[in-house]
Parts: sequence; C-alpha cells; structure tokens
Amino acid sequence: MMKFFEDLAVGDRTGIGTHRFTADEIKAFAKAYDPQLFHLDEEAARHSHFGALCASGWHTAATWMRLMVHYRRREAEALDRRGEPIPAFGPSPGFRELKWFKPVFAGDTVSYATEVAEKRASLSRPEWGLVGFLNTGTNQHGETVVSFLSTAFVGRRPRARE
Amino acid sequence: MMKFFEDLAVGDRTGIGTHRFTADEIKAFAKAYDPQLFHLDEEAARHSHFGALCASGWHTAATWMRLMVHYRRREAEALDRRGEPIPAFGPSPGFRELKWFKPVFAGDTVSYATEVAEKRASLSRPEWGLVGFLNTGTNQHGETVVSFLSTAFVGRRPRARE
Repeated sequence: MMKFFEDLAVGDRTGIGTHRFTADEIKAFAKAYDPQLFHLDEEAARHSHFGALCASGWHTAATWMRLMVHYRRREAEALDRRGEPIPAFGPSPGFRELKWFKPVFAGDTVSYATEVAEKRASLSRPEWGLVGFLNTGTNQHGETVVSFLSTAFVGRRPRARE
Repeated sequence: MMKFFEDLAVGDRTGIGTHRFTADEIKAFAKAYDPQLFHLDEEAARHSHFGALCASGWHTAATWMRLMVHYRRREAEALDRRGEPIPAFGPSPGFRELKWFKPVFAGDTVSYATEVAEKRASLSRPEWGLVGFLNTGTNQHGETVVSFLSTAFVGRRPRARE
C-alpha cells in the first residue's frame, strides 16, 4: 500500500499487522479512556451484555493506527533500502463509518488489513490523488470486529519517473 | 442528556466536560497508539506540517469517550439521589463522520459537547428509541477541533410513569 497513486488499484488489499489484546492492556486503556465496567473488571463484565472482559472500541481502533504507522515505516525503509522513491501520504482529515461488529475479548488476536475501495485524481492539486481505504480488523475466528473508511491524499509518481 | 427518549428534543445540547492536553500525555498516548513524530517530539513537530507538538486524533476522540462515561455516571448518580428512574443507554454500534478539523496542540483545552441531531422510535423494539447525536470538541479559541456522529439506543420512559 506504500505506493504512488498511479500504482494503487481498487481491490488491492494488504495485511498491516496483528495484535493480541491482553486483559492487562484492555484494562489500562479503559482506565485512561473508557472506564466502563465491562472494559475494566472480569467479574463485572461477566454480568454485562458482553459476557466477558472486552476491549474499548476506541482501543481496537487506536491499535489499527499504531500498526498502520509501523507498517508504513517498514515499507518506507524497504523502499529506501532499494533506492526507490517513497510515496507521500497526506494527513488524514478523518474517518467514516466506524463500526464495531463484535466485542474483542481478552486473549483475542485481531488481524488488521486495508483495502483500496476507491480512487480519484485531485483536480485542484495535481500532485496528489485521493484514495479511499476500507480498513478492517478480523479476530481469530474470522469474524470482522471493526471496520472504517479512510480517505488519504496519496502522492502521484514523480514526473521524472513517468 | 441522561434522559428518556421522550424527553430528548432535537437541538438539545450539553457540555460534557473539558480537558487540557499536556505534552506528556500527548506523547504517552502517541507512544502507545500513534507513534508519528509530530505527536512524539516537540523539535520534530516544529518542522512538520503541524508546526508544533499536537495530539493524535484518536487521543482527542478517546478523551471524549472518557468524559462521556464520567458525565453519564454523574448524571445517573444525581438521578438516583433524587429517586428518579435512570434511562438506559444501549452500547454504541459505531460512529460516523469522524472529522479532525484542527490540530490539538500541547497546552490546548478542549471543551466537549453533545447535541441531539435526530431521533426516531424503534419499530422493532418498542422499549427503545434511536437517537443520533452530534459530538464536538472545541478549543480555547472557539474552533471546532473534532466532531463525529453517534447513534444510541435510548430507553423509553417506563409505562408506569406515563
């Protein structure tokens, strides 16, 4: 996915990383950012509608962000080692349709992926293209637990290389 | 906003709390969930497109969640003290249109608010109504820094009280 706008095709999909959510980490995030009992305490969670300790939805989303940052860094380093140009990604103006489909329970492993959902040239800024990505997290049972859409400005291939 | 479905009106708005983002907290969140240099290091941030150390967008969103949990708890306790029934809120299935308009810099204070944007009865589940909320964060200069839409199932007033 670390590609220039011209080289991304709708349907391209890549895994960006995997994370196992431990009980300790779930509780630490919840204590700081989402102190609801079913994210904080096993016993209370057992009696909640979730039935067991599970991660805050913001935790599962923020974990995507960490994996994405690391993924881009690895990819950029690999391109750099090969002496290839590194595509620019503009900052994200936001996300759409953030959905939590299933709880992420303590011990669950979530595999995150990103897929090109749409792309179009930017009319006003010819050095950039706009790419829409569908981002997903899938647990060890193959169930989608989180998804959201993002839009990024992606740099176009330098003229010199065309 | 801790009200039964019948008592919420489109346009109702309430502040839920305020938070000052310190440099230390911005860096701690970024280290764990969004390790981009402009969230981690003042000097690197000065040379970035943001111009100064600023919070991860996920950090400003997750802070809304913490304030909302505390707000609901305070409101529920106040109702309980007055012997009034406490409206039920179902778990959120997700958010829409999460937008970051401006960076939140170290030292900025963000005031969070929530407003009833739409409401409708649930046809399939008569004990619940569906309420759409517009959630915002506004900095000390009066600029909206973050906004998103949420939808919640909100309990209807118990029959006994009608």
